Amino acid sequence: MTYSIAILGASGYTGAELVRLIATHPEMKITALSADRKAGQSMAEVFPHLRHLDLPLLVKIEEIDFAGIDLCFCALPHKTSQEVISNLPKTLKIVDLSADFRLRDPEAYEKWYGNPHSAVEMQGEAVYGLTEFYRDEIAKARLVAGTGCNAATGQYALRPLIEGGLIDLDDIIIDLKTGVSGAGRSLKENLLHAELSEGAHAYAAGGTHRHLGEFDQEFSAIAGRPVQVQFTPHLLPANRGIIATVYVKGDAQAIHAAFAAAYADEPFVEVLPMGDIPSSRHVRGSNFVHIGVTADRIDGRAVIFCALDNLTKGSSGQALQNANLMLGLEETTGLMLAPVFP
Amino acid sequence: MTYSIAILGASGYTGAELVRLIATHPEMKITALSADRKAGQSMAEVFPHLRHLDLPLLVKIEEIDFAGIDLCFCALPHKTSQEVISNLPKTLKIVDLSADFRLRDPEAYEKWYGNPHSAVEMQGEAVYGLTEFYRDEIAKARLVAGTGCNAATGQYALRPLIEGGLIDLDDIIIDLKTGVSGAGRSLKENLLHAELSEGAHAYAAGGTHRHLGEFDQEFSAIAGRPVQVQFTPHLLPANRGIIATVYVKGDAQAIHAAFAAAYADEPFVEVLPMGDIPSSRHVRGSNFVHIGVTADRIDGRAVIFCALDNLTKGSSGQALQNANLMLGLEETTGLMLAPVFP
Amino acid sequence: MTYSIAILGASGYTGAELVRLIATHPEMKITALSADRKAGQSMAEVFPHLRHLDLPLLVKIEEIDFAGIDLCFCALPHKTSQEVISNLPKTLKIVDLSADFRLRDPEAYEKWYGNPHSAVEMQGEAVYGLTEFYRDEIAKARLVAGTGCNAATGQYALRPLIEGGLIDLDDIIIDLKTGVSGAGRSLKENLLHAELSEGAHAYAAGGTHRHLGEFDQEFSAIAGRPVQVQFTPHLLPANRGIIATVYVKGDAQAIHAAFAAAYADEPFVEVLPMGDIPSSRHVRGSNFVHIGVTADRIDGRAVIFCALDNLTKGSSGQALQNANLMLGLEETTGLMLAPVFP
Amino acid sequence: MTYSIAILGASGYTGAELVRLIATHPEMKITALSADRKAGQSMAEVFPHLRHLDLPLLVKIEEIDFAGIDLCFCALPHKTSQEVISNLPKTLKIVDLSADFRLRDPEAYEKWYGNPHSAVEMQGEAVYGLTEFYRDEIAKARLVAGTGCNAATGQYALRPLIEGGLIDLDDIIIDLKTGVSGAGRSLKENLLHAELSEGAHAYAAGGTHRHLGEFDQEFSAIAGRPVQVQFTPHLLPANRGIIATVYVKGDAQAIHAAFAAAYADEPFVEVLPMGDIPSSRHVRGSNFVHIGVTADRIDGRAVIFCALDNLTKGSSGQALQNANLMLGLEETTGLMLAPVFP
Repeated sequence: MTYSIAILGASGYTGAELVRLIATHPEMKITALSADRKAGQSMAEVFPHLRHLDLPLLVKIEEIDFAGIDLCFCALPHKTSQEVISNLPKTLKIVDLSADFRLRDPEAYEKWYGNPHSAVEMQGEAVYGLTEFYRDEIAKARLVAGTGCNAATGQYALRPLIEGGLIDLDDIIIDLKTGVSGAGRSLKENLLHAELSEGAHAYAAGGTHRHLGEFDQEFSAIAGRPVQVQFTPHLLPANRGIIATVYVKGDAQAIHAAFAAAYADEPFVEVLPMGDIPSSRHVRGSNFVHIGVTADRIDGRAVIFCALDNLTKGSSGQALQNANLMLGLEETTGLMLAPVFP
Repeated sequence: MTYSIAILGASGYTGAELVRLIATHPEMKITALSADRKAGQSMAEVFPHLRHLDLPLLVKIEEIDFAGIDLCFCALPHKTSQEVISNLPKTLKIVDLSADFRLRDPEAYEKWYGNPHSAVEMQGEAVYGLTEFYRDEIAKARLVAGTGCNAATGQYALRPLIEGGLIDLDDIIIDLKTGVSGAGRSLKENLLHAELSEGAHAYAAGGTHRHLGEFDQEFSAIAGRPVQVQFTPHLLPANRGIIATVYVKGDAQAIHAAFAAAYADEPFVEVLPMGDIPSSRHVRGSNFVHIGVTADRIDGRAVIFCALDNLTKGSSGQALQNANLMLGLEETTGLMLAPVFP
Repeated sequence: MTYSIAILGASGYTGAELVRLIATHPEMKITALSADRKAGQSMAEVFPHLRHLDLPLLVKIEEIDFAGIDLCFCALPHKTSQEVISNLPKTLKIVDLSADFRLRDPEAYEKWYGNPHSAVEMQGEAVYGLTEFYRDEIAKARLVAGTGCNAATGQYALRPLIEGGLIDLDDIIIDLKTGVSGAGRSLKENLLHAELSEGAHAYAAGGTHRHLGEFDQEFSAIAGRPVQVQFTPHLLPANRGIIATVYVKGDAQAIHAAFAAAYADEPFVEVLPMGDIPSSRHVRGSNFVHIGVTADRIDGRAVIFCALDNLTKGSSGQALQNANLMLGLEETTGLMLAPVFP
Repeated sequence: MTYSIAILGASGYTGAELVRLIATHPEMKITALSADRKAGQSMAEVFPHLRHLDLPLLVKIEEIDFAGIDLCFCALPHKTSQEVISNLPKTLKIVDLSADFRLRDPEAYEKWYGNPHSAVEMQGEAVYGLTEFYRDEIAKARLVAGTGCNAATGQYALRPLIEGGLIDLDDIIIDLKTGVSGAGRSLKENLLHAELSEGAHAYAAGGTHRHLGEFDQEFSAIAGRPVQVQFTPHLLPANRGIIATVYVKGDAQAIHAAFAAAYADEPFVEVLPMGDIPSSRHVRGSNFVHIGVTADRIDGRAVIFCALDNLTKGSSGQALQNANLMLGLEETTGLMLAPVFP
């Protein structure tokens, strides 16, 4: 059977990545693509790398007939997303890639995003989309909220450790390095090639990045007490890929064992041999996560490295993985593409 | 049915690219991998991006039992390749990615590669692997010689024009820009990141690049008279992708029409609308070719742009496309992966 | 003596490059900096790499008192530049980095730039700023028009050959590759890091790039007859640097000898040994030009390579060299900075 | 007066950087250059970006007559350096860029570098080359040991804080990102452009990087008790530049004030306004250090960012700054070059 798929917000990078992945998905067909400002254009004009595909024209959302759609990916900016989703048919399966339904608490949402939530009633319905930890809920969900790409990376590196009580909850530092595509296709001076290449810098330092809302919510829930991590994202001169370096107080061997156990049956999470260090290059363009653990020379301290592709496992690949579950398909369908290296 | 595949020379970039592509090929399974100096290692050690795959260990060629192998990809250096292939079973289907069987004339081989050919008797048997132009012969071949990546790019841009008598044969210039993976995984000072990034330069200028042997052979055969082109390759600070800028004397509209006709039914060759300019970024990681034509302000002159990924369509993707034909499979099997952008 | 310098348009890359160079110029002091939209800010805010310098605040042009200014660099967009310069004191020495005074013929200006020239009377006064070929006129000029960066590169590679009657004037091709800073600090989608890195493409192909106006003017004047070249610029995934590959019909040895003679006494132009190939990396951040010549395998054809840094020798370095001459200083003052590599 | 300068090990990146800087130094002249394997070649062959300079040929060390040399830079690998320096005239002023004389304790040297020190008697004589903190000793020294580039970066970010008793000495994390030129011009697979670009990864994790020997020595000496930091270096896809992200427990305002006080009169150290974040791009090619401080959302924790160019302030620029002091010159001579951006 072939499922009919709509993608709202197809002119951004996560939209294009969904199209790329679905292009070789054997049981999905894209039947509607929206892009507000670029409505009327073809995908080949907006993303020439997709020109070989036979795709519908970009239209405005209101032109889409959702009657025949089996599942809708919503790759719109936050705030817009909640407004649009409120008006979609209440029976439509939706995977939202924005930040709008990640935080269950409306106050937390308003704190991190600066505006009151306009679809509070749907916040309760939404399931948090970190597949490996919400698999059963996702399979039954109508609305799944894709995670932040940085938030996903940090959680793969920390959830089993908090769950297992293996680390000091008051001394967790996530120093994260991300490629530039995570910032989207927006016209900002600091995203120009001439400004961004050949160097690196931190941004949203000191605990101000919005993905902290997800860390706070998830880690506190697991721990059963408030947990606040330190988190500093840095922008790399690379297009794709995140590498998180996570500093914890705990036993490195126990940590490695916990990862090995937690991810033993996961198709997309690879735990490296003790001491091996992953690279963001080696997951590029794929849905895989690579995790490494190293003991520090100071007793009782460990460093964890977690690499994934922000556009794939951190966003559109995760979304497709969840969509597979929601449609009753094999979770890995269309997602086993090997990383592209070099 | 699943075909059993061997890859010789799996520790280089074209070997790794074959593994990447075959990883999601539904009718092939890799059962043997060789790498001389790295024999005994796993692919995960040599190429960590492939660590999720269940692959055989790297072994020496002599350790492989070819009895159960349906098709063997040979991704060895030239000269080594002819020696190895001479000793393989004479019934084994082989796709050679080296330069050893591209030139039909032993003298031409010796002229461009500097050593006499040691398997002259097999040169006649080998079919030149430019799929779109040798499809029928390839389907029946036992030994197919993959083309040079630059040679492929130039031929997509010129064969239909020479065939159609549309251009002046004495004034053809191919100014080509290629990513660095085309140079392989060799330890050379000029391939270091610090040396290669942030700039560009030509190499093998003035008509000394070995791929000219292929241009001479193929273009002269089509034209029925000697044809010599000018060819200057440049090294780009990018890992993958070739863009050839081809200067010809001929009518741009007729040239565009000839491309449209020649490639109308080709699954991997996209002819852009007149005046559109392709980019090497937009074919990255894929088997697609993008061709554009622009008329010059000087009457009777045209510029052709041709983009492909040197590791995929220029090498391992082409090899897999040919292997599909040789095994009686659908030519596009496992090769419809969309380009990775950004 | 220290000369008082104003820079109009200091918030763009050529403005910043002027500040960088003048920072270590022993006989110039920047006393006024303008930036229309960023007036009121400090240079440290607009360009943090200049934060160690003691510079005046950015102001609007009308706030500058030109009475004490010895020389004014005008780094404004074309069209704006002619309007601003018309209103500056008629005795002020000016080096204009825009395109507004490069073309002596008002019709040619309108043809290439799309608007009538609004300061036609000053077009005659302006001297074309290619220092090595207009040195005496520049030393006496009040208004010097900096060349296009591509136009400079092509002229270094061709002027001595046209002058010497060494090449076929009807068959000249300039295939040029340029770093992205040449496009300025403008917010365009195709200049984003995610769009521009990891590949290359041509733009303004087919004889439509505005710098052709300069080639036509200069080459025709030297030849004493109309000369039209073919010119295809390509955008590189690098910030600085141009490499032009120039295809001509002529004798390579004679061409090399002509360069050696023409540039023998030039402090900034290096002619490489016959057959050596320059790289844009090796002139980065400097005012030097590297020229190489290679004979083609086809008799009577040669390929010339010319490398320079678009922001330095192609723009702000050239401007400073001209300013030195106009102020009676040693031409090389402040400009002998060695290239930055790697 | 012009001082006569020798550079041993001129074919590596730090050697070339010394030549670049001295090229515009008004009181130094390079009179001898050595390079073991490349003896007999010109610098133009080994580093084409320096071809405009009139430099002596590369020779073997034993061919150099040190009689007329005023100061010798030694840019050799560690271990080689101590052997060579032992045999140089005992009156020659030397700035060593290797690791050989950084650690005062022979046991510490052997622990971190794996071999016993063969010039123990000179270890006591050598002065540690972090100019801002050893200025007076350096001015009087005969032998100065340049610091590790990472070690310099971490110390600029931490010395004033340890000195001032402002931070918890048992919880210091230096997460550092460095450009690839820090690894030198060595032929290693992981330094190839195809391997290193488009991603990032840590190396020498868990407290194994040799620069920890310097941190241990210096921080413990300041604190008057053993201090061990955590240190994780990462390799960036950029050629130059280090950005260190330093996590400390202490008051951000007090920390910022301590930096402002400590570096108030330093010509090369810029302390950014509270909350501003430096970038490695903005010190590129220069001798400047940019330091920023941000308070974390968790009370009593701060994040410090420190950026410098590993080849300049982290190595050859620092060496030249020290040489100026040793020769009685103004410390900043030849070093005020502004950073190159973009």
